[in-house]
Amino acid sequence: MDIHNFFLMLFLILVSARILGELFAKVGIPSVLGELSAGILLGVSGFGIIDVNDVLKVLAEIGIILLLFEVGLETDVKRLREAGSKAIVVALFGVIFPFSASLLAGIYIFDLTLPVSLFIGGTLTATSIGITLRVLRDIHKEQTGIAQIVIGAAVIDDIIGVIILVFVYDFAIKKEVSLSNAGTVTAFIFLFLLLAPMLANILSEFVRKYDPKKQVPGFIPTIIISLILLFSYLSHLSGAPEILGSFAAGIALSRRFFLPFGLGLRASADFIKKVKNSMTPIIQLFTPIFFVMVGLSMNLKVLDLTSGDFWIMSAVFLIIAVLGKYIGAYFITQKCASNKMLIGISMIPRGEVGLIFAEIGRINGILNNEIYAVLIFVIIITTIVPPFLLKWLFKFECA
Amino acid sequence: MDIHNFFLMLFLILVSARILGELFAKVGIPSVLGELSAGILLGVSGFGIIDVNDVLKVLAEIGIILLLFEVGLETDVKRLREAGSKAIVVALFGVIFPFSASLLAGIYIFDLTLPVSLFIGGTLTATSIGITLRVLRDIHKEQTGIAQIVIGAAVIDDIIGVIILVFVYDFAIKKEVSLSNAGTVTAFIFLFLLLAPMLANILSEFVRKYDPKKQVPGFIPTIIISLILLFSYLSHLSGAPEILGSFAAGIALSRRFFLPFGLGLRASADFIKKVKNSMTPIIQLFTPIFFVMVGLSMNLKVLDLTSGDFWIMSAVFLIIAVLGKYIGAYFITQKCASNKMLIGISMIPRGEVGLIFAEIGRINGILNNEIYAVLIFVIIITTIVPPFLLKWLFKFECA
Repeated sequence: MDIHNFFLMLFLILVSARILGELFAKVGIPSVLGELSAGILLGVSGFGIIDVNDVLKVLAEIGIILLLFEVGLETDVKRLREAGSKAIVVALFGVIFPFSASLLAGIYIFDLTLPVSLFIGGTLTATSIGITLRVLRDIHKEQTGIAQIVIGAAVIDDIIGVIILVFVYDFAIKKEVSLSNAGTVTAFIFLFLLLAPMLANILSEFVRKYDPKKQVPGFIPTIIISLILLFSYLSHLSGAPEILGSFAAGIALSRRFFLPFGLGLRASADFIKKVKNSMTPIIQLFTPIFFVMVGLSMNLKVLDLTSGDFWIMSAVFLIIAVLGKYIGAYFITQKCASNKMLIGISMIPRGEVGLIFAEIGRINGILNNEIYAVLIFVIIITTIVPPFLLKWLFKFECA
Repeated sequence: MDIHNFFLMLFLILVSARILGELFAKVGIPSVLGELSAGILLGVSGFGIIDVNDVLKVLAEIGIILLLFEVGLETDVKRLREAGSKAIVVALFGVIFPFSASLLAGIYIFDLTLPVSLFIGGTLTATSIGITLRVLRDIHKEQTGIAQIVIGAAVIDDIIGVIILVFVYDFAIKKEVSLSNAGTVTAFIFLFLLLAPMLANILSEFVRKYDPKKQVPGFIPTIIISLILLFSYLSHLSGAPEILGSFAAGIALSRRFFLPFGLGLRASADFIKKVKNSMTPIIQLFTPIFFVMVGLSMNLKVLDLTSGDFWIMSAVFLIIAVLGKYIGAYFITQKCASNKMLIGISMIPRGEVGLIFAEIGRINGILNNEIYAVLIFVIIITTIVPPFLLKWLFKFECA
């Protein structure tokens, strides 16, 4: 790849994301949709100026990891634990319902094979924490009880989603489920989830102690980014998606994790402030790249809007995708109905996770072009509509 | 490329650069050499864990551009102009002497062909501003009169170096010099140098005015990085090396350039502080990647230390490389001899620029393995030794 052309691409991504993000924010639309639109305009659906390439993927990946790291840094572990049981309920319903409903609809309504129906189920089971998180941050609601439940549930869904993908992929390719393979992945993920916070904790203790002794400037951003990279790599080894690694590292650095080490609260708060000060510009630089990439990956050209079958299938799976994630929130207690609505809607975006699933299915010949187009349509609608609803509905939140 | 392996690579680069940089600094060795050593250890000369790839190249490139941008931001244009005539003298002697001496030594001592001798001359003419700049920053001497002359001269050398490379490359490949081709590049470079500060100025004015109105956070780092990317791209179009574009953008943002717009000095200083606050973590994150990459590119395995011819040729070209850059400083007036020594030594490192020249020669079959090894040896010595001398000699600087 030519470095200069890459520079131009990155320039176009950063500038268009910024301009559209600002314009959207100015007229009251969530800025993340501006960044998404920038990707759609620059990519294959629009002017076709930018192709997705590996370098962009890496930068986008770092972007989403950093966003999750920042949320982890700000999240109070105690409050996340309190939200835990509710998050588990929301997550489980958000997996069971869309997966089984897609499977049944695929087989009995559309007469699809079992592997194809399973893959559709897997695609519609994934939750994209990125989109919702960004909207919550933009409207300064990321520290609410609702956000804690949503973050917890989305992380659980991400884990279950990967396990389902492993199972379904195995089955679709080999026509049989290898329990040992899927079992190994599952075991690794749980081991990682157990060990990651401990390791992050030890490392963050080291960072905090070592920071004042540094000779070369820039210790904090370098070591934080290194930690994120290491955890992402380790979480990959365990078979989990990268975002889990960074989340654990972020959590570990937050105040509650420093307390066991007998630190004064003030000292920890200062350190967190220092970490945030040196990380914020880096986070603000990288995260829009991720959302532009999601837009770049949305190929609107595959959609055949003139086909009646397309609309029928899209309508069915869209209803499953929306209701499947939405109803989970009605099985937990909340102060009022609008809070349940907010939690339900927050879980709907499929975003990049759904796009990756659909892409894996298409590349491996499991999903034909027609079904792939339906899934892309469902993913686009579930990704674009909820941010509007969330922004508006948070006015009715009961705190 | 696999994203997870890239994450691991980047982790190893950042952590090893940090650890070796800190260790070196602790025992009084310039930390940049620690980062260089990290690259040598990780690369083909050491454990061979990391291969140079395009993504790393891009990140390294952004690293050096950001370092130059920061220096531009801190540089007083008035003082740089005062240093101008002296910088030109140092630069010109630093081009004429090593180039002509290498050419003569190649033809009359070692019986090499004209194209080969020309290419050796081109390689030994380049100055790596990166290494010296980093050392000057580490010992907090980047704002001295000496630094201004060195920065000015190194930028001029970079420009002349590129023009020489175009000429020499043309001649070596086509066996004739295409004046129109080389002339076009030269004209473009000068046009760019003329227009870039103006454009940067207009853009920086826009940045400063628009900043308070922003809706989405992170305006400054995004727009600064975008500006650097754009200028790098434009400077590439003109045929100049990327680093010139970022340098111009940095200069444009500095105080002296804001004054003509009738701004109060305090307002400008505040804005520069704001720019620096949001850029420093990003700069500190990216620059070590560049120096590790220089180390990765130094293939020590090509050196055949048992060959007598190797040592004779290396000795001759090393003397030319060192003296050729060093004596330029003796043609300008300075308060004392040690200042001249400091300027002379600052110009010696060939670093990445020399490595790129040698690599182009080798890939195109102009330089055989033996001569390539000699150049690599000369580049390594001229890159590693001056930082030690500079750090020690600045004790004798006359301010």
